[in-house]
Amino acid sequence: MKKRLDLAEFKEGIRSGNRVVLSQAITLVESTLESDQDLASELVQSLITETGKSIRIGITGVPGVGKSTFIEAFGKLLLDQGKKVAVLAIDPSSQLTKGSILGDKTRMETLSADKRAFIRPSPSGAALGGVSGRTREAMLLCEAAGFDVILVETVGVGQSETAVKNMVDFFLLLMLAGAGDELQGIKKGIMEMADALVITKADGENIEPAKKAKVAYENALHLFPLGEKHWSPKVQLASSTSGSGLREIWQRIENYESQMKGNGFWESNRAAQRLNWLDDQIQFLLGQAFLKDSLVQKMLLDRRAKVQKGELNPSKLAKTLLQLFFQK
Amino acid sequence: MKKRLDLAEFKEGIRSGNRVVLSQAITLVESTLESDQDLASELVQSLITETGKSIRIGITGVPGVGKSTFIEAFGKLLLDQGKKVAVLAIDPSSQLTKGSILGDKTRMETLSADKRAFIRPSPSGAALGGVSGRTREAMLLCEAAGFDVILVETVGVGQSETAVKNMVDFFLLLMLAGAGDELQGIKKGIMEMADALVITKADGENIEPAKKAKVAYENALHLFPLGEKHWSPKVQLASSTSGSGLREIWQRIENYESQMKGNGFWESNRAAQRLNWLDDQIQFLLGQAFLKDSLVQKMLLDRRAKVQKGELNPSKLAKTLLQLFFQK
Repeated sequence: MKKRLDLAEFKEGIRSGNRVVLSQAITLVESTLESDQDLASELVQSLITETGKSIRIGITGVPGVGKSTFIEAFGKLLLDQGKKVAVLAIDPSSQLTKGSILGDKTRMETLSADKRAFIRPSPSGAALGGVSGRTREAMLLCEAAGFDVILVETVGVGQSETAVKNMVDFFLLLMLAGAGDELQGIKKGIMEMADALVITKADGENIEPAKKAKVAYENALHLFPLGEKHWSPKVQLASSTSGSGLREIWQRIENYESQMKGNGFWESNRAAQRLNWLDDQIQFLLGQAFLKDSLVQKMLLDRRAKVQKGELNPSKLAKTLLQLFFQK
Repeated sequence: MKKRLDLAEFKEGIRSGNRVVLSQAITLVESTLESDQDLASELVQSLITETGKSIRIGITGVPGVGKSTFIEAFGKLLLDQGKKVAVLAIDPSSQLTKGSILGDKTRMETLSADKRAFIRPSPSGAALGGVSGRTREAMLLCEAAGFDVILVETVGVGQSETAVKNMVDFFLLLMLAGAGDELQGIKKGIMEMADALVITKADGENIEPAKKAKVAYENALHLFPLGEKHWSPKVQLASSTSGSGLREIWQRIENYESQMKGNGFWESNRAAQRLNWLDDQIQFLLGQAFLKDSLVQKMLLDRRAKVQKGELNPSKLAKTLLQLFFQK
């Protein structure tokens, strides 16, 4: 078995843009072994001044919307412009949805084959609190390795959207034409989080329905509050097959970047995201320690159903559990 | 000074619908003294089988939308139907917004004067985690005191909307006609949480703009996902001055109740809310204990700014802080 690289070797490999070392480093980040996690944290820390220079883009949409073909085509466009592109995936529920998200690298053949691209499937079977922290560290490692654009893919059905929104600069929602039924899978609130809506598969017979959907969504978006950054999301059409619309989406993202860097939102948002990350991790680790406690587990098992049925005051049980936890 | 009532006296007073005792009990719930809190928890627990029979309605909207006049008029309608109505307020940011929310009881003169109504201003200057737990306990006490409808008011600008959504059966968003600018104060995502939208002040010259706004919002809502409960929120017009539209809003809420009780969502939602409450309280108490720790405080003070600037890996700091916290 190969010896694990040491800190200096990892660092050197990543700084030189070595994709194999980057991949091993992310495995380290995802490891549940404490010694691996400690080394991973050290590694991220040692590279931290070299992070932050990419554009971080979150991409979501229901299964069937064409996320992977979109990322393939959009990533290709960016590569052609001379950019280095990394694709990460976050999917805390992959154990339920059978882990299809980026699980099959062959879905992105062009990107996978290109040396300026890096594709990393989602770690499977992990809880959200853990996953989002790890994806954030993986993102920083990709930046230290010189990637200019990080695409973070998520399935539009779970809680991962908020987690992704909290780690990216720009949040893109992919939609299908023929509004209504297709939307049922999208979680409430996601549309309002989006910095841009893209109607995919806008080609052939689908162009007319796509145009109609664009108008409908634009009218809806118009009613949304602008939010603190004063950005009005637009609805754009795209075809991953013909490539139409992709250039305009990238332009829109560049507009966003320059506008937000101009008004200070870009950096203030990232600063807030870093504190949010700290907060998230503290909450996650506290919760983990709490739920590992055998006395807590026992009492929860015993009384949780009573809370659920409305027979036990949740505030009271919470207090009792905390006393139990801190007693020792 | 008056002696504090004991558990039996509190219990008896609440069960007999005594508003003075109810008010004192809620003061107990809101107290930061541990002995008060313990008694409050006991009291809620002792009455728990008598709770849960009301309809819990959350009401939100930006300042200026006319929340208090709406609640006054809507509450009056319910009183006229023979119902007992309690109004609670949740406002974790009241220390910032100068505590205007329900702070002035004279704003609801009719309700305040009526014995079948109970109005409780928001406790000021408290953190959300604490406030929402206390509002939930206050709600249960009101139910035990025989109130049929609980209206929970919140300002549409902060984080309290999600907290309220998580404790009510029906979530009502009040809006103004003349869509666009007026919306800027509403937090993103709230529109998608609403079970109904009501355009207020739909009287006089404002009727035509209100009708136009209704159409626009209906088109927008049509694009939203229905969610697991398969309920399509409607947009309704109301005038708190003339009373028009209020009866229809109540009808809509009654429809909701019978539909959701029929499909099982009502009870499954409440069960989920109870577990969410437990979860919330555990997280809140864990966080509170953590942030009270002097070593944690010192390190956070020292390193938080470094995280914010992107000089320190948040995951690493979180781990270090947790080690520090659990060391003792």
